[in-house]
This record gives sequence, structure tokens and C-alpha cells, in this order.
Amino acid sequence: MGRTSDAKDKILEAARSLIELRGYSALGVAEICKTAGVPKGSFYYFFESKEALALAVIDEQWATQRENWNRVLHGDEEPLLRLRQLFEETATAQRTGQETCGTVSGCMFGNLTLELSNQTEVIRGRLQEIFEAQVDMVQEVIETAVERGDARVADTRDAARAVVAQLEGQVLFAKLYNNTAQLDVLWLNCLALLGAQAPAKDVAAA
Amino acid sequence: MGRTSDAKDKILEAARSLIELRGYSALGVAEICKTAGVPKGSFYYFFESKEALALAVIDEQWATQRENWNRVLHGDEEPLLRLRQLFEETATAQRTGQETCGTVSGCMFGNLTLELSNQTEVIRGRLQEIFEAQVDMVQEVIETAVERGDARVADTRDAARAVVAQLEGQVLFAKLYNNTAQLDVLWLNCLALLGAQAPAKDVAAA
Repeated sequence: MGRTSDAKDKILEAARSLIELRGYSALGVAEICKTAGVPKGSFYYFFESKEALALAVIDEQWATQRENWNRVLHGDEEPLLRLRQLFEETATAQRTGQETCGTVSGCMFGNLTLELSNQTEVIRGRLQEIFEAQVDMVQEVIETAVERGDARVADTRDAARAVVAQLEGQVLFAKLYNNTAQLDVLWLNCLALLGAQAPAKDVAAA
Repeated sequence: MGRTSDAKDKILEAARSLIELRGYSALGVAEICKTAGVPKGSFYYFFESKEALALAVIDEQWATQRENWNRVLHGDEEPLLRLRQLFEETATAQRTGQETCGTVSGCMFGNLTLELSNQTEVIRGRLQEIFEAQVDMVQEVIETAVERGDARVADTRDAARAVVAQLEGQVLFAKLYNNTAQLDVLWLNCLALLGAQAPAKDVAAA
């Protein structure tokens, strides 16, 4: 039993790492199994298809990321500073990835959206749920900021989507230039999108 | 001669359309030639590799798009309204694509950046040049807007990159949801990023 789940974990880990490096279409089951060090037969014991594996990789990645986003966005800081922390942690995660594999690999969900959403409706649906959840979480923080008078937006849903879109767009640039410095602007752009000033606490720390 | 360049055009057109639908990695030379209706031998007469073909497709796409961007961004309208026109034409192009092939295919350069920039340095370099050129063009418009007192930004380069990042992020959402209505927010988000109000002319037209 221990050995069995170990093989499944190895496949998931190999797939996650290969998908980050080279996307989904470029991969074959044989290569995933070779990287994982497991016989090809065991792949189909755990996953009925490459698509099923991709969904499992996406779910695992989102489980980790959602936990981080919840921790940061439901934190004790005032709302705008929680968003700033989200951007800082995103930059840190991209930097760590770059140190590990030599290149900025970007956001797995953004990568797979542009690569796959037109090709598999199951994966498109899962990615929609994830981005909706991200926008929900950011919207909740923006609503709190608006209630406190820290931000002024016409529509908190549109504003939340704009913040996530800006994040995806700047992560795209970070990947394009293999340079995480692109992400330093996220905080100021977010303030502009929310019609907000930097909180006094942030200005004092600068 | 006429027939020869016709075959090359057919390959380019088939590759462009297939890359828009399914990305680069999922394609093989045989499929491209089959779609183009040309013998596989003629592929290697025109292109030394699939990567060389991708570069040709990218260059052709950018030649068309750059012409459109130049026309709009060097137009007679006041600067902020030129940016609005750019967003409207982007939405129209995505809608036309959706009507033609059933799905919003997004921005070819954004798609290939997320799919390929970590895998081929030649394509990464070409995509960097294209995005730099886009940011240059938007920056020029923002500078004019700032000079006229229509916009207030700390750094026109960062602001231009934020506008292009927002565009890429919202096009990602349009592709994810197969819904071009996502793009209607670009104009208001752009105004927010530029610390700008809607020009009087735009308010009157609304």
C-alpha cells in the first residue's frame, strides 16, 4: 500500500514538474513514467488517461495555492496590505522556481488556460473554477477595503478580475523575460486599479 | 514560381490556423502539410524546421497586427481614445475569430509565450521583441496623454507595460470563458491604471 501510493506520488510529481517546464501537449505518458522511475503499466493503474493525470496535477497545485491564498487574504493585515503580501509571495514562488529549474515557469493555471482551454472542455471547466475562486477571494478583500474607505471601484467583481488579470499578465512578462523583477510593479498597479493610495503603514515602511 | 509561393502560403496559413487552435507542441509537420494540401517534401523546401515555420507564422501575424496598432495608435483621436480604439479592435478581432472557429483563440503571442518561451530561446527572443514593440507604441501614446494632462503616472514605461499586461490577462479570461465580453472592461481598467478620467468626448458618446 505504501509502495503503491508512492508510485502515484512519483507520477504526479514528475508530471507537475514536466508540465511546468514544457506544458501538457509536449509530454507523453512514457516520458512521465521514465522521469517518475515507475513502469508504464502502473500509470494506467492510477490514471485512466493523460487528461486525468493533468486534472490531478491541477487539483494538487490548486489545493496548495488555495491554502496559501486563504492564509494571506484572510490574514490580520489591513485589506490592501494582504493583497501586497499576495503579490510578494507570488514573486517569491516564481523566484524559487527559477532558482530550481533555471527559468521562470509562470502560473500553471495561466499556462494551461492558454495552451489547452480550447482543446479539452474538462480542463477548461476546472481552470474556470480555479480562476473564479481566485476572483472570489480577491473580491472579498476589495469589498472590505471599499467598506473601510481604502479603495474606490465601480464594481468589486470587475475590480477583482482586473487584479487577477494584471497578475496573470505580469507573470506572463516574468516568464517571457525570465525575470521576476517584472512582478515588483504588481502592488502599484493594483492600487491604481482600485483607486487606492498606499496605506500609511506601507508608506512608512518604504 | 506562382505555384511555389502558393504552396508556401498554404503551409503558413495552415500552420497559423492550427497554432491558434491547438498551440505549437501538439502539431506535427505531417498534419500541417495535410491541412495545407501540400506534399510533405515541399515543407522542407520552404522551412528548415517546425521552429522556422513558427517564426515565420509569428512574423506574419505581427506584421499585420503592427500595422493595425500603428494605424490606431498614431491616429488623429486624442491619445486616450486611441487606446480605447485599440481595445475595441482587439475585442472585434477576438469575436471574429470566435465566429470563424467556434472558440476565442486569444493572443497568439501570449499563447506562445506561455507555451514555449522556456523551450526555445529563438522564439522567446522574437516574442520579447514583439512585446517590447507593443509596449513602445503604448508608451508613446501615454507620454502624449501625460503631456496633455490627460493621465498621471509615475513611470510611463511601467504604465505601458501594465496596460499590455492587463490586455493579455483579460484576453486570457476571454479564452478561458470563451467569451469576448471579458474585454469590455479593458477601457475602464486602462483609465484606472493611467490615473485618468474618461475624455469628455467619450463621456458624451456613452
